[in-house]
Formats: sequence, C-alpha cells, structure tokens
Amino acid sequence: MKKHVVGIDIGGTKLATVVADNSGKILSKVRRPTFADKGSEYAIQLLFEMVDETITKANLKQEAISGIGVSCGGPLDTKTGIVYSPPNLPGWDAFPLKTRLETEFQIPATIENDANASALAEYRFGGGRGYNTVLYMTMSTGIGGGIVINGQIFHGANDSAGEVGHQILLPNGPLCGCGKHGCLEAICSGPAIARRAKEAIQKQSNTTILALADGHIETVKSEHVLAAARQGDALALKLIDETAYYMGWGIANLVNILNPDIVLLGTIAIAAGDLLLQPIRKTVSDFAMARPAEAVKIMPAQLGESLGDLATIALVV
Amino acid sequence: MKKHVVGIDIGGTKLATVVADNSGKILSKVRRPTFADKGSEYAIQLLFEMVDETITKANLKQEAISGIGVSCGGPLDTKTGIVYSPPNLPGWDAFPLKTRLETEFQIPATIENDANASALAEYRFGGGRGYNTVLYMTMSTGIGGGIVINGQIFHGANDSAGEVGHQILLPNGPLCGCGKHGCLEAICSGPAIARRAKEAIQKQSNTTILALADGHIETVKSEHVLAAARQGDALALKLIDETAYYMGWGIANLVNILNPDIVLLGTIAIAAGDLLLQPIRKTVSDFAMARPAEAVKIMPAQLGESLGDLATIALVV
Repeated sequence: MKKHVVGIDIGGTKLATVVADNSGKILSKVRRPTFADKGSEYAIQLLFEMVDETITKANLKQEAISGIGVSCGGPLDTKTGIVYSPPNLPGWDAFPLKTRLETEFQIPATIENDANASALAEYRFGGGRGYNTVLYMTMSTGIGGGIVINGQIFHGANDSAGEVGHQILLPNGPLCGCGKHGCLEAICSGPAIARRAKEAIQKQSNTTILALADGHIETVKSEHVLAAARQGDALALKLIDETAYYMGWGIANLVNILNPDIVLLGTIAIAAGDLLLQPIRKTVSDFAMARPAEAVKIMPAQLGESLGDLATIALVV
Repeated sequence: MKKHVVGIDIGGTKLATVVADNSGKILSKVRRPTFADKGSEYAIQLLFEMVDETITKANLKQEAISGIGVSCGGPLDTKTGIVYSPPNLPGWDAFPLKTRLETEFQIPATIENDANASALAEYRFGGGRGYNTVLYMTMSTGIGGGIVINGQIFHGANDSAGEVGHQILLPNGPLCGCGKHGCLEAICSGPAIARRAKEAIQKQSNTTILALADGHIETVKSEHVLAAARQGDALALKLIDETAYYMGWGIANLVNILNPDIVLLGTIAIAAGDLLLQPIRKTVSDFAMARPAEAVKIMPAQLGESLGDLATIALVV
C-alpha cells in the first residue's frame, strides 16, 4: 500500500528530507548542509542518498512511497519541474529537478516554489484551514508570498504569481535585491529593518538597540530592534511603527486586489506578534476599501518550525 | 429548446436589455434611461417590461430563455444576488436583484459586478480568448478591474477581488472617490487626468488643451488632453507620460502579484492607443520583475461598443 510520501526542502544553507504518512504526520527526517558552492550535481546526489536514508529511517521501503514533494527557491517551472538559477542556489541553471528525481526513484515528483508550498501548508495544516482565499507572506530575509484559491496554489502565467514583496511602494526608495527600488521587501524585510535601524542609530545614539547588538552597529539585526521595542525603546518603537505602516500599505493593496479571507504573516510577524500586527491591521483598515477590509483577518502564520517540512508534504498528500 | 439568454446591463444613466443566442450573438436590444433618482422599485418594474419587450423583439417566447445575466455596479453579493448601495444607483440598498428577477421570470439569474462581467466577456469573446490568467482594467470615470483565472471570474472572499484601481500609490496624493488618498484611480481615471490638466493649465497657459475645450477650463476633459497630445502639445504629452508612469507602476505591481498572461485596458487606453500603451509597457518593464514581465502582454481591450452587452451575455452562455 502506497500510503507514504517523501518531502524535500532545498534551501540555500540546508537540505532536509522527510517521510510522512498520508495524514501529513512526519515519521523521519534527515538534514544536511547544502554546500551551495558545490552546485546542483553534488546536491542532487546528496539528495538521492538522503531520501533513501529517510525512507529506511521510517522503517519503510521505497515501494511504500506514492509521491515526492519538493519545496525550492524559485524561479522554477512547476509544469516541467525545471529550476532556473535561484539566487540562493548558484549553478542550478535550468536544472531538471523533477526529471532527475522521477528517473532516480520512479515516483512522481511535484516541484514548487517555497513561498507557494508554505502557503499551501498553512492552508492544509495551519492558519489557512477552512478559508477559500488565503494569502501567505513570508517576512524574513525577503518578503515572499503564496496565494491559495479554493485549495489550489495560484500560479499565474509562468509560476510567478504571488511576488507580493516586490510591489513597489516608493519608486525612489531603497534598492531592492531584485534590482528595482522601493519594493515592500526593500523596506520591511529583516535586512531592510536592520538597515533602517543602522541609519537611524548613526543619527541618534540614544537607543538600547546598539547595546542589544553588543555595541557593534554592523551586527544590528531586526531581532535587536524587536527586543528593544519590547523594552519600550523609543527609536525601536518608531522603526516598528514605520515597518507596520509600509507592511499595512502593501497588504491593503493586496486586500483590494485579492480580497483574501485571511492574510498569514510569517517569521518576523510571528516573533513580533501584536507589536507589529496591531499597527499593520490599523493601516490596512485605513488604506483598504471597506468591504474587502471587513472580510479579511490578518494573523501570524501557525506552522512555525514545522513549516518547511509540511510545505513539502502539502504538495503530495 | 432553451437556446437563448437574456442580458441586463444596469448603469447609472442607462438600462439595456438584450437577447442573444447561445453563441453570444445579439438578436435584439432595448435601451432606456435609468432615472436613477426614482430608485430601485421603479427600475426593476421598468426592467421587467424591457425584458419582455426584448424577447418579443427577437421573435421568441419566454420559454426559449435559459438564463439571465446581469451586469451591475457593485458592491454586490454574487451568491445571494443582493446589490448593496452602488454609488451610481441611489436607493438600491440591499436590493434583492437576483430574487426579484427569478421570481418574475422563473429563470435562473446571475448577478455580477460590471468590471468582472466585462473581464469575462473579454475572456470569452475578446482580447482574452485563449489566455488562462486575464486581467481587465477599465480606465474611464473610474479604474475598475476584473480577474479571470482558467475561465472563471476570481471573486475573492466577498466579491471584492479586482479593485485594482484602489491600490494606493501616493498615500499623500489626491483624494479618491473611495475616500482614501492617492489611489491609482485618483491619478489616472478620466476625471483625474482632467483635474491634473486643469491644475497644469492654471500654471502654464501655453497649451492647446484649453482651445480644444472651447476655452473654458471647467470643461477640460481627458479627451481634450488626448487630442492635444496627438497634435504634439508639450503639456498634453507631459500629462500623458505622467498618466502612463502611474498606470505602468500600478500595472507592474499587478503583474508581480497576479502574473497575468494578458492585461487588457479599456476606454481611455483604447482611445489613446500606443500614445499611452507604449510608455505604460516601458514602465511595466522597468518596474515589474523580469519573469512575470516577460510573460505579460499589455493590450487594449477588444470589445469596444459591444462590451456592455457581451458582459451580460458572457455570464450565461
């Protein structure tokens, strides 16, 4: 009986493989560093070994596996399963990931961009359960997004739908990793919050943010801003309010365009909780049209540490 | 054989009813002024008469009609068919349009917001044929939008999806009809273009726009700006470029979020053609991410004068 699935999570720093039963319960897991500098061929051989090891660790044989779900940084083509040079995976240039896995294991593989897979996991197992229109937004190194409509990932014309972090709010604003200026990501991602904090500290030293980063301005991170804000530090609270204003503005636009039942925010929003979520909700209510604003809930994502694993599994159970 | 359908187009100034065969060919049409000040009960009785008259005019009997499609200004609820106080229809407060029509004619009625119905018509009969992800944007009195995914209108949580004209670009910008500031609509709709023209003319009289509006600044419309731009008037060309910049910025955000195969622009964009479309395409290419920008075509909508009729018919054939 093929009642189990394999999940593969391919990140820039780590690879993880899991085996789960068809309810999504994780039975075994193997992790390795990605060694991104060794390229795609090294990684695929490593993944083949890891999958075998994970199946064995679950006391199963390969015959028990019905499908492989893969969550990977994009851009990628979900139909062909080809991965096109993700920024965090040097050397993965038009790499035929789906075909390589299917040839090796003779099991169907589903390849998905990590933000989309995470959105589907939140819909299947987390905060999006029971909602027809779900928007999931990461808020960490970057601001990614995934849209789930009636239980299906919305892919758009060429698997690029949901790049919500690259809506431009300030065309003359800070440079974004994508090469444009003033994207939501360039203002509100973790590194962007840290950059704004550093700029502010250089103008105004009266803040506990620096002490929390052991006195070194170059080590200031968004975590230090959050910690300082929790202690009531005025500059940190101003930075958080600024972040909430731009996040709220961006989400209000998404609420008008997509009319989601729920917007689930990851990582930084989970860590910050209501400190960030309350002013975000206020800005959305100020900026979005009344009818879609009334319909939407803005909540932290629910899957936390298990999101990466469940993102791979959600694709195949 | 029930091979025919009725379409009803409810606007703030005119009502139209059509009968079409099941290929979408219009067989008869009746038009009346809306007399919006007389309210919903007057209008529904008038529509009952108009539908009967249109069926008779097509040499059919009511038994030949399989469905009624209704295109109406929103907000409205497509499931219940209740219309909630559209700005252009005073007195239509929680008006049970679907139930009233179904009770009168004993035929199923489908009620849809006019921008969504237009998007579906472009998908079925116009510029969106053959594309999986279609974004239609009106560009006239307001900037509305409709999203068609795999042949279905995307409604979102409460029929508010596609309010693309109310994405905010300039939070400190001009007041919008929706009560917010700096929406795309408040910058690029027909009245917004006219407002910017009037403001510019007051500062700089060296333009042919004013002469084209018979010398009266209060009668300046977007049409005069377009006509002056075609004659090479510098101020008019600047206003058109400005319009294209903001439209392109807004569309680039939509391209990143929705990854459409095609964006179809109505009314003003059709009238302006490449004068407006070329600089819009340039800005989208500058502002959107490379992969979704490569996938999208930005084109004038195709249905022109017949859009209103076909919008109603597309809902039921």
